[in-house]
Amino acid sequence: MLNLNLIDSELELVPEKMWDDYQIRKIAKNNGKNYKGMLLDSNYMHSAIDRYFPGMSNRMGRPDIFHMFLNVVQDSILNRKGLLSVRIHTKNNIIIRIDQETRVPKSYNRFAGLMEKLLVSGKTETPDGKILMSAQEGKWDELLEKGMKNILLSPKGVRRSTSEICVEKDLNVFIGGFSDGDFTSDVYSQIESFSIFDNELTIWTVAWKIIGAYENILNL
Amino acid sequence: MLNLNLIDSELELVPEKMWDDYQIRKIAKNNGKNYKGMLLDSNYMHSAIDRYFPGMSNRMGRPDIFHMFLNVVQDSILNRKGLLSVRIHTKNNIIIRIDQETRVPKSYNRFAGLMEKLLVSGKTETPDGKILMSAQEGKWDELLEKGMKNILLSPKGVRRSTSEICVEKDLNVFIGGFSDGDFTSDVYSQIESFSIFDNELTIWTVAWKIIGAYENILNL
Repeated sequence: MLNLNLIDSELELVPEKMWDDYQIRKIAKNNGKNYKGMLLDSNYMHSAIDRYFPGMSNRMGRPDIFHMFLNVVQDSILNRKGLLSVRIHTKNNIIIRIDQETRVPKSYNRFAGLMEKLLVSGKTETPDGKILMSAQEGKWDELLEKGMKNILLSPKGVRRSTSEICVEKDLNVFIGGFSDGDFTSDVYSQIESFSIFDNELTIWTVAWKIIGAYENILNL
Repeated sequence: MLNLNLIDSELELVPEKMWDDYQIRKIAKNNGKNYKGMLLDSNYMHSAIDRYFPGMSNRMGRPDIFHMFLNVVQDSILNRKGLLSVRIHTKNNIIIRIDQETRVPKSYNRFAGLMEKLLVSGKTETPDGKILMSAQEGKWDELLEKGMKNILLSPKGVRRSTSEICVEKDLNVFIGGFSDGDFTSDVYSQIESFSIFDNELTIWTVAWKIIGAYENILNL
């Protein structure tokens, strides 16, 4: 089994202190949404983010990278074989658990609507009540697994190839859920960290490199 | 060098016979676009496509899959090392060539705007005039390379692992640029075809499986 855990993920609804912003109100109105239950998205709210969180607009509000990540990992052969588990820990200490059979929409706008529903109501489900994604309060270290090898991937870690890292039968991998900066949770002191490239990579590239190496072990 | 070529890609502007459709006109108006230069997108034009091309709405108009594909391949280590070339042949016999340094927008809506510009004007460029993507008329077989091993990937091909396929130093790989159905160009009679899984895969999964196997050869 391979677990992929995104930590400190920049996935959140528009923070309360931004609710009165004229740009946020306008975007909500144009999209027929309630600003209290709208995803923070720096693609459209760049200057609004900088008004309330100076200098943070390159990091905060990146649902697009989770859309890309989930589409990449959910279509993988490993996931189709039922051997991949994905959890997303957010910067606000929400843990999102995703059923293996979930397939997020390929359309970004539909994906955003689904994540809004998840973060507002705590779950998304099929018409007959099967839970596809759940969102509950929780800290990142709840995702550590005693019976598995826990590994942190970070440009700061010890340089190793993915085939050197993926040698265990059960692997619990932690990846930063952000496109800029470093972990804010205290991850380094608690897990051994490795780097797979001499520069930063997007979360979906890290994911497919690890999934690919793991599939190689299993001859998938 | 690894070349990835998408063939018969379902990437096009709204076809002329759909220009008078009320839904097309409405979508164009709501997005401040000219319907003659707007991407066909089945996520929003599903019923309109079926009105003019009955039964084709699951196949036609899928710019979202190219957005996912390009984000996956462009961030790969192979591409960053300058060892990957990507070309997209469309169903209308347009060949899109993409500079290795191009990075498409992570935001889907910005990506769609960029592809519209490309298909209308034939190119996209940097402010100082460097061409990032070009679109010119051309048939798929112009992408065959005499000095390289040409390989077609299709669920119909002979089953092989990616490590069995990726043994050549220079590889020219052809993948179907559609999410449903089969090639319409006469590809099978002209290239040896292989299958890497016992079911259909998205174009980005096929791409990263091949890139991953190729990176393994090069110890990347």
